[in-house]
Amino acid sequence: MNPLTDALTEGQQRVEAALQHALPDPALTPVTLHEAMRYAVLGGGKRLRPFLVYQAGALFGETGSALDAPACAVELVHAYSLVHDDLPAMDDDDLRRGQPTCHRAYDEATAILVGDALQALAFRLIAGAEVPDIASRLAMIETLSQAIGSRGMVGGQAMDLGAVGERLDAAELEDMHIHKTGALILASLRLGSLCTGLGGAAAREQLDRYGRCIGLAFQVQDDILDVSGDPATLGKVSGADARRDKPSYPGLLGLAEAKRFAMELRDEAISALDGFGAEADTMRALANYIVEREH
Amino acid sequence: MNPLTDALTEGQQRVEAALQHALPDPALTPVTLHEAMRYAVLGGGKRLRPFLVYQAGALFGETGSALDAPACAVELVHAYSLVHDDLPAMDDDDLRRGQPTCHRAYDEATAILVGDALQALAFRLIAGAEVPDIASRLAMIETLSQAIGSRGMVGGQAMDLGAVGERLDAAELEDMHIHKTGALILASLRLGSLCTGLGGAAAREQLDRYGRCIGLAFQVQDDILDVSGDPATLGKVSGADARRDKPSYPGLLGLAEAKRFAMELRDEAISALDGFGAEADTMRALANYIVEREH
Repeated sequence: MNPLTDALTEGQQRVEAALQHALPDPALTPVTLHEAMRYAVLGGGKRLRPFLVYQAGALFGETGSALDAPACAVELVHAYSLVHDDLPAMDDDDLRRGQPTCHRAYDEATAILVGDALQALAFRLIAGAEVPDIASRLAMIETLSQAIGSRGMVGGQAMDLGAVGERLDAAELEDMHIHKTGALILASLRLGSLCTGLGGAAAREQLDRYGRCIGLAFQVQDDILDVSGDPATLGKVSGADARRDKPSYPGLLGLAEAKRFAMELRDEAISALDGFGAEADTMRALANYIVEREH
Repeated sequence: MNPLTDALTEGQQRVEAALQHALPDPALTPVTLHEAMRYAVLGGGKRLRPFLVYQAGALFGETGSALDAPACAVELVHAYSLVHDDLPAMDDDDLRRGQPTCHRAYDEATAILVGDALQALAFRLIAGAEVPDIASRLAMIETLSQAIGSRGMVGGQAMDLGAVGERLDAAELEDMHIHKTGALILASLRLGSLCTGLGGAAAREQLDRYGRCIGLAFQVQDDILDVSGDPATLGKVSGADARRDKPSYPGLLGLAEAKRFAMELRDEAISALDGFGAEADTMRALANYIVEREH
């Protein structure tokens, strides 16, 4: 065990308990929808985004239950986006985290509604967060709604769909990822820092730079694992992007150069935290983990 | 012309202009997504929900631009729910307001993303509304997120899907509609009144009762038009519910009794406004219009 692994496990357990509580009781009507919402969210995943909420909060001195609502909210949004992305009309995936995707375990209509309801729940949680300063709660909602809309996460997914079979250059590929996965990662860090009221504009700008780098590094590493990873470790079929003719960093730069780019992003993420002390060590370790992980 | 028709037209024009401004510029990337969002929202529809925002605001003395953001937000949510409900996995409709549905004009993936992005935009608009009292804005977000989640609008749609081919009794049918369409109608009235700060608990309870009655009346009349309406006037095929074996009020009660029920709801809606003066006349006329309309 190392400190990062311990912190990740602690964050996973913490957000899992909060999500259990935040999701509707499956005994409530409509039962199937509530069961499917829990199926889509609980019991798996790295919980990277909630971890970033907790870490950014801690960086500015907040470790209490105020962080749980935004931590759950970003995970609910992430889960909703996976449920919709997996649909037959989108990526048409049968497996997610080694289990049947939501529309395979239930049906397509339920999966569409699960995503829709999870998004609404995310905003509801933040509106009712235990953050005494209501201006901060409103700023969190503005930040999240902007990050996941047509100029953020959903826009990135649209770019991704439009890019199948196209030849993107490195700038276009980066632009797509900055929207598709980067925007929510950046928002997670901002939400954590917004829980603490003020932290200073310069410090927040450092956090944004860190977020942009790890977000992109995460995606580059995903692309690398898709061509070189072990399906058993991944929990999904490897080589799926290439078969779909989706643009990827290894496809664009070659595998060696893609690995070098991931390391460069890792280094820039760590240097963005210059000036923070030992309280940022977990976030530094996370930047390493993102480019060294095997699933 | 009568005063209600004038007020409806004025509300439609007002919210149309506000929506034009609120929706992303179609020249922005991703272009197709932004075009499809505008296609799904602009240029049609009764704009009943924005009208309720404007009317409820006016009832408590607010008629200014503070109402435009919530008026747009409820219409964006309504439009997103229609886009998703029309999908092949849901109601599989080809026409909406006499035009190809979003997934027919574009494709299924785009239609899914259009709905997702419209929901996020709705929350963003309220977070940034011109309502000086930020506690009111937060209350609006709580109200809307609750109304459209798994225990509100989305839950109602799940109940509706689960009811195909089932025999519902009147209480179950009412429960489904109270969620599927009633919750957003009620929320529209509440959002309008929240723009004005305080209006008194008793007055708000009256508005809730009015909203519950016109919401259900609207649905009963929709069911009646589905079996007896003129397809050219409706802009869609009539008899669609019966062919899908969907439960409906005429199917459950017979056509004559369904019409009687609609009138009863209209009367209760009007009596809910007792104590308000001439400022509520448009809302009284609206209750009449809802059960007398032919499309």
